[in-house]
Amino acid sequence: MARKIIIDTDPGIDDAMAILFAFHAQELEVLGLTTTYGNVSVEQSTINALALVELAGKTVPVAKGVAVPRVREPGEFPDFVHGKDGFGNIGWAAPVTQADPRDAAQFIIDQVRAHPGEVTLIALGPLGNLAAALERDPEIAHLVDEVILMGGTWKERGNVSPVAEANIINDPHAADMVFTAPWQVVMIGLDVTHQVLLQNSLLERVRNVNPKEGTFLYDIAQFYINFYSGIHDVEGCYFHDASCVAYALQPDIFGVARGAVRVATDGLAMGQTIICPEGKTSPLPGWDNVPMTDICMEVDSERLLQLFEETLCQ
Amino acid sequence: MARKIIIDTDPGIDDAMAILFAFHAQELEVLGLTTTYGNVSVEQSTINALALVELAGKTVPVAKGVAVPRVREPGEFPDFVHGKDGFGNIGWAAPVTQADPRDAAQFIIDQVRAHPGEVTLIALGPLGNLAAALERDPEIAHLVDEVILMGGTWKERGNVSPVAEANIINDPHAADMVFTAPWQVVMIGLDVTHQVLLQNSLLERVRNVNPKEGTFLYDIAQFYINFYSGIHDVEGCYFHDASCVAYALQPDIFGVARGAVRVATDGLAMGQTIICPEGKTSPLPGWDNVPMTDICMEVDSERLLQLFEETLCQ
Repeated sequence: MARKIIIDTDPGIDDAMAILFAFHAQELEVLGLTTTYGNVSVEQSTINALALVELAGKTVPVAKGVAVPRVREPGEFPDFVHGKDGFGNIGWAAPVTQADPRDAAQFIIDQVRAHPGEVTLIALGPLGNLAAALERDPEIAHLVDEVILMGGTWKERGNVSPVAEANIINDPHAADMVFTAPWQVVMIGLDVTHQVLLQNSLLERVRNVNPKEGTFLYDIAQFYINFYSGIHDVEGCYFHDASCVAYALQPDIFGVARGAVRVATDGLAMGQTIICPEGKTSPLPGWDNVPMTDICMEVDSERLLQLFEETLCQ
Repeated sequence: MARKIIIDTDPGIDDAMAILFAFHAQELEVLGLTTTYGNVSVEQSTINALALVELAGKTVPVAKGVAVPRVREPGEFPDFVHGKDGFGNIGWAAPVTQADPRDAAQFIIDQVRAHPGEVTLIALGPLGNLAAALERDPEIAHLVDEVILMGGTWKERGNVSPVAEANIINDPHAADMVFTAPWQVVMIGLDVTHQVLLQNSLLERVRNVNPKEGTFLYDIAQFYINFYSGIHDVEGCYFHDASCVAYALQPDIFGVARGAVRVATDGLAMGQTIICPEGKTSPLPGWDNVPMTDICMEVDSERLLQLFEETLCQ
């Protein structure tokens, strides 16, 4: 039986890779996509999510989510990373389908309630929709199979501030709610995603075998790769979001450490994932009864990229 | 010519090691001690500083400093680390001498003004006295040779919270003032001090050669060693404060990275030294014009301990 997932997403170039990856994986059943602001506005990310469902030839619902962070002031959208349209400014055609009438939080709640214990949430953007769902129906924490999220960092430096990763700093209050809720969270942060470099050669091979989606992925990736090769000394792009789909398929690609995770919500550390390793305590308040998160710290980069390629070429 | 130093201190067992180490080093001229709360109250640390001066047979001034943090609520004193009296509860006799009439900040300012460009501040406790001196006479930042401080951590986890070291969290606002002032700061934090273990065998050798100070150091160290062997799986104690004196003598014992340091002043990250490495920028506010700190990340443990032993046996 395929594993039921909902992808919460702000496509976004690496979100697009993750979503097409998930649609191609026979071991996964995508119940729907929920959208959030992040790489682009929530209006744009909803358009893009619908376009990806159409491109994949699927009919799953897309439910539009939150437009702004819970508490902090909204930031700018990083159009220098994903392009103004979130798809590397390639001029992709608008979708013809429409979003689900429910908002993202309600869609998540309805699906989790319909399939208790069976739904995994794969969260690729800021965590406002998961926080809203928890707030509206706290019991879902006990009914979700697992939350696999791309965000945060432990030993690796941040990609927005010296200590903060983009998804988490985009809504630190929501992230803190997600990490402290009584469900199993898997954190896939910069500690592992900065170890995996996706290069054009792989995308070219996918394009040869699967020209429809492969051409799209190759084309949007060029903007993203240009950004990464400009600021880092790398030829390729980091494989952030698609790593979560790989974890859902083959968790043993990753090496995991366990710890309590809290998120700094203001000041210079805003957006930092602060980690108290399993077995350690803190005399300061705020660390009692925080559940253990599985924090990915190691990754078999070759196996991960191979899984992505093989799945998209199926 | 000997290097002029002022030791700002909260003795404290490892402070006592650092102070006797400095008094024995012919390459250093101790202009005086300034005291702060931290390991014990400022009243107790002043008594202890005077006692150390007497034990060393010196006549340098001791100037009493701040009693509480600048902004945050005072915490408890860690009598489980240093004993209630800061000297491992060995019942050491009270000093007969008196503290200088000036407060610590004024003593620092007077000495720095009297010897422009020549005075190094060695700070072994919370940084309230240095902050007070900077506030009263900001120009001293340009007249101090160097600030060598024990505090903070970068890659190593904190010893109070998951991210905060004790001296810095004891007055995060003062620490942030010290790291952002226009003087050269050397940070000796847990990244290096947790690499150096002082064991009884060394203290026994010092006691044999230099029974007066060696017996005192051995006796007070037992409480401290018991604490460390209780919470860490080590036989000995970490060599925190005395590392700063070693740096003043032979900086090449340490390997240094450079970066801008800011201190989180509230929330879950309170007391964290946040580091933006040299050559990296942060798009978030708060990082413009922060001077580069030399952050000790490597240490030749054997050479450091040998220098301590040889100096105390001179």
